[in-house]
Amino acid sequence: MKRKSNPVGFKNVQITGGFWGGRITLVSEKVIPYQRDALNDSVPGAEPSHAVENFRIAAGLSKGEFKGFPFQDSDLAKWMEAASYSLAHHPNASIEKALDELIDLMAKAQRPDGYLNTYFTVAAPDKRWTDFSGGHELYSAGHIFEAAVAHFTVTGKRSFIDLAGRYADYIISVIGPEKGKMKVYCGHPEVELALCKLYRATGEERYLKLAEFFIDERGKAPVFLKSEPTFSNGKKDRWLDTDYHQAHLPIREQTTAEGHSVRAMYLYSGMADVAAETGDVRLASSLRRIWENVVTRRMYVTGGLGSQAYGERFTIDYDLPNDTAYAETCASIGLVFWAHRMLLLEPDRRYADVLERSLYNGSLSGISLDGTKYFYVNPLEVHPATATARKDHEHVKTERVPWFGCACCPPNIARLITSLGEYLYSVEGRTVYAHLYADSTADVRVAGQKVVLTEKTDYPWDGRISFSVDTEKPIRFALALRVPGWCGGFACTVNGERIESGVEDSGYLVIDRTWSAGDSAELILDMQVRLMSADPRVRADIGKIAIQRGPLVYCLEEADNGPDLHAIILSPKAKFKADWEPDTLGGAVVVRGDAVRIVSPRRTEEPYDSILPETEPTTVTAVPYCLWCNRKPGEMSVWIRCGD
Amino acid sequence: MKRKSNPVGFKNVQITGGFWGGRITLVSEKVIPYQRDALNDSVPGAEPSHAVENFRIAAGLSKGEFKGFPFQDSDLAKWMEAASYSLAHHPNASIEKALDELIDLMAKAQRPDGYLNTYFTVAAPDKRWTDFSGGHELYSAGHIFEAAVAHFTVTGKRSFIDLAGRYADYIISVIGPEKGKMKVYCGHPEVELALCKLYRATGEERYLKLAEFFIDERGKAPVFLKSEPTFSNGKKDRWLDTDYHQAHLPIREQTTAEGHSVRAMYLYSGMADVAAETGDVRLASSLRRIWENVVTRRMYVTGGLGSQAYGERFTIDYDLPNDTAYAETCASIGLVFWAHRMLLLEPDRRYADVLERSLYNGSLSGISLDGTKYFYVNPLEVHPATATARKDHEHVKTERVPWFGCACCPPNIARLITSLGEYLYSVEGRTVYAHLYADSTADVRVAGQKVVLTEKTDYPWDGRISFSVDTEKPIRFALALRVPGWCGGFACTVNGERIESGVEDSGYLVIDRTWSAGDSAELILDMQVRLMSADPRVRADIGKIAIQRGPLVYCLEEADNGPDLHAIILSPKAKFKADWEPDTLGGAVVVRGDAVRIVSPRRTEEPYDSILPETEPTTVTAVPYCLWCNRKPGEMSVWIRCGD
Repeated sequence: MKRKSNPVGFKNVQITGGFWGGRITLVSEKVIPYQRDALNDSVPGAEPSHAVENFRIAAGLSKGEFKGFPFQDSDLAKWMEAASYSLAHHPNASIEKALDELIDLMAKAQRPDGYLNTYFTVAAPDKRWTDFSGGHELYSAGHIFEAAVAHFTVTGKRSFIDLAGRYADYIISVIGPEKGKMKVYCGHPEVELALCKLYRATGEERYLKLAEFFIDERGKAPVFLKSEPTFSNGKKDRWLDTDYHQAHLPIREQTTAEGHSVRAMYLYSGMADVAAETGDVRLASSLRRIWENVVTRRMYVTGGLGSQAYGERFTIDYDLPNDTAYAETCASIGLVFWAHRMLLLEPDRRYADVLERSLYNGSLSGISLDGTKYFYVNPLEVHPATATARKDHEHVKTERVPWFGCACCPPNIARLITSLGEYLYSVEGRTVYAHLYADSTADVRVAGQKVVLTEKTDYPWDGRISFSVDTEKPIRFALALRVPGWCGGFACTVNGERIESGVEDSGYLVIDRTWSAGDSAELILDMQVRLMSADPRVRADIGKIAIQRGPLVYCLEEADNGPDLHAIILSPKAKFKADWEPDTLGGAVVVRGDAVRIVSPRRTEEPYDSILPETEPTTVTAVPYCLWCNRKPGEMSVWIRCGD
Repeated sequence: MKRKSNPVGFKNVQITGGFWGGRITLVSEKVIPYQRDALNDSVPGAEPSHAVENFRIAAGLSKGEFKGFPFQDSDLAKWMEAASYSLAHHPNASIEKALDELIDLMAKAQRPDGYLNTYFTVAAPDKRWTDFSGGHELYSAGHIFEAAVAHFTVTGKRSFIDLAGRYADYIISVIGPEKGKMKVYCGHPEVELALCKLYRATGEERYLKLAEFFIDERGKAPVFLKSEPTFSNGKKDRWLDTDYHQAHLPIREQTTAEGHSVRAMYLYSGMADVAAETGDVRLASSLRRIWENVVTRRMYVTGGLGSQAYGERFTIDYDLPNDTAYAETCASIGLVFWAHRMLLLEPDRRYADVLERSLYNGSLSGISLDGTKYFYVNPLEVHPATATARKDHEHVKTERVPWFGCACCPPNIARLITSLGEYLYSVEGRTVYAHLYADSTADVRVAGQKVVLTEKTDYPWDGRISFSVDTEKPIRFALALRVPGWCGGFACTVNGERIESGVEDSGYLVIDRTWSAGDSAELILDMQVRLMSADPRVRADIGKIAIQRGPLVYCLEEADNGPDLHAIILSPKAKFKADWEPDTLGGAVVVRGDAVRIVSPRRTEEPYDSILPETEPTTVTAVPYCLWCNRKPGEMSVWIRCGD
């Protein structure tokens, strides 16, 4: 089954205002320059990156030692990708020049054979292609390919994509199905999806074939990764075994999400890309099974993934502790990537719902409101004193930090936000799907004609979304508007007239008509506050509820509610009020309601007693999870105890 | 303030039947021989100990390498102590002979200067007295001293205590306050309390002085431990810092329980011993402050201590997670030791209550009903699939095991049980305190006269405790019977007549009269099932209740209640029935009551939804925590969700 639906690319979608407009401007104008400085080791107080300096050393322009992780190059590549996207909507000569200089630097660091990796060039020249489980060589290559495609797509310049093509061609010369070539794949998937992008940008089928080869090889017995001395860091370690690399079974036999959660998301994204191009039915059905496993058993309500810090990985079904969650920002971003690809394979609002859940919550929580501080780990409950005292909470930071030694997340969130236009619409035949809602203008090609769709909305703060259509001549096409699963009710008008279309099984409201310039449609989604429960098999969430409004998951913060959030009890019948507060957290809908709080300390001298705790009435204030920790640090909790 | 109350020693108390009689017989007749075999590496399927073999090698009777931990000697010493106690009530020529042979072997392994430690003799002869933070040299010495005192007390033979005295005298020749001697103390306290025992057994004040020296030195700045290359395993590690060794402050300035929980308990026991002998008021008041901290903020309801696996240590107030608890058997045993010493310093039922809590729950859970399997770690909640899947639960064993490479716990529980007679009574002036209740006969010296107290009881299964007095001539003394804090009501008769004495502030009911042979007293303690709550600041227990009856904390097991114990909800108003069941777990009072259970799976396709879980009625069966995991392995939980 080949991909049915094609995205309207980010170049054709301008997000102009509303929730995302401001954020895209922030990232383009402030975060991209800030991260450039961080990658050049010039942000005071931030952990040095050394990523640019490594390229200088590899290019012979600087003396010194390689520093950082073997995959340090990828931080720079992801920034270059983000910077390229930003040029599409925020042209900036200085950033464009910085990109040109970096591409020039990369060209100088590239080996004569096309190889390009500063770690294996500078620090371990004799180790090239010997460490697929830990070396991230193909992973880093993948990020260069993605950045090059973004740069080419936006600027039309060939410098970067030609360099990337030379590297890819070199890889094809040493790895592949042909006799005499290495039968390998990367411990950290990424190159698969990147090769598909390179294929789409260049039309060169050999890149798709290589991606397919990596997918086919993965998990074949005997698993070649195990023969590497670096496998599992050289020790027997069941959390760093073949499943950590999603290589425990041939890919088409996998049914559950295993191992390192970012690796998993990138792999599934690459699988979806290959399936979309090749129509591989078994690949698609394996993806559907894994999807069910992830979203119904191994995903936090925030779209966070990875419930164990060690191995940054999936564990078992329903094991979703809130305070020791790993829920790496990159894993939620990876889930956005994967969900988007599933949505393009088969439009179904369930994919878009998860995409939205992960985007608005687990991904966006990774970056501060001012864009210069980041979370790597996104737990759903933070009690700073406990997180600081306990070794098993060591991965939890109680505040966002300016940079990381392993800085995969900051440029990842930057590239997601700067390319967000790509996620709004897709076209299948003469249907235009609107998946995500944002204040925007899109140039859409449908039924052989250009249509300009202008969207006005304060979504996700408000459920009213207005579309206006501009077209040279009247054109019949279907506008398919997603009605999210969280939505209890909706209304839709076309040119002011109520329409009574039902929602299709796929979760889209389809308005199939002839549209003329000036026509408009309006969708109003109910945005009542909802009290969410998890599957009762999730031990960490039993007896608790989470507050959600629209796609936003809310949390309680100490800043609003005082300490000891665990002592607060919400009634399942409580009524909550949601109000726009322009001065809170840069403007946000804040949720308030009545609750009770256990009185502490109780009056007994015994360490344990049969006195039941007393409660007193209180009110609670909940703010969007993605905005937490933008005031003073303190306790935070998404899941709140529930009782009558 | 000197010790007011003297224990009636284990030699004078025969525990004859009831709850403890059977267990003492089991340990004496089965466990002591089993552990001898384990220490001789002859239990199939058990981790080898090598402890006896190390002594053979040190004695020149065997060739080979030292194996095990630097403190391996202590496992054998603790067994010798337990075996010695057992001879007092279960004479056994073969065990007595085995002891004589081991003492002979130790004498051969002892160096000419008196030094006795197989690790530093065989494996690291040049490292003697260089590794106080990790070497456990004085700790191992302490266990030899304790064993020697037990052997001497029971058998009257001098072989072992003379050997111990030579070692202690050698230590005094190299460590102490005098000029030219080392100013050190052991990273793992133990020798302090052992030296006090040696002092009491021999009357040699120099042993008490050395104990006092160790107490005085501890925590003096600069902390000498930090200058050792082995400190914190040679790395900067905040969980293995000076507080890990209780050396972060001079002892008399310490107010909270810090660091490794077993180390802490042994230190506080030694401090209490020194305070009892010297009347050191500051030492006693420091102990009282630390006691309050431990029992009201850092102790599990089972008497378990140590809420973090890494460092096997205390963390912060109210941090008491149930599933990742460390709660080492030895720490609970250490709390029994410490509580007993506090009780002798000042009779107060609060000390005895904690002693009993720790004895009946967190200590006794360490050994299986058949005596041959052991828990090192005693969590209050075990979900086997999670415990097996998660790295941060790696320390949790889901079943007891036959032995450990680090086997401190098995002989520790053996020595506690075989010496339990010592914990029943103490005498202060002309008052006989009954602290713990057990079916027993005690020879008590009070007011210059011998009194035989015979106690008949099924405690803790039943609250009726009958005393009969035998004495040559009438004697006036006060019998002070503890009324535990958990007891909601009681009745007392003397010779069948109801007496109306109140309970003193100390929590003892004092019957002060002239007793004649044949007089009797009966105390009936109310043993209603109690639903216990923790301090609301304990985040892990909020909204939960634990079932307690008498001193026994109960738990739910999968064997009785099926899986998914987290889905069970108890009403705080539920009525529970407690019945003796002779065929359950070797005979036990089982608690049964009504509850509800959340129905799972719920009917929704969404990963998270606003559907509140449905419940259905169920009944629950609770068994004593100390008996859990004596049937098939499975889930267990002490704290159960509470709701209306």
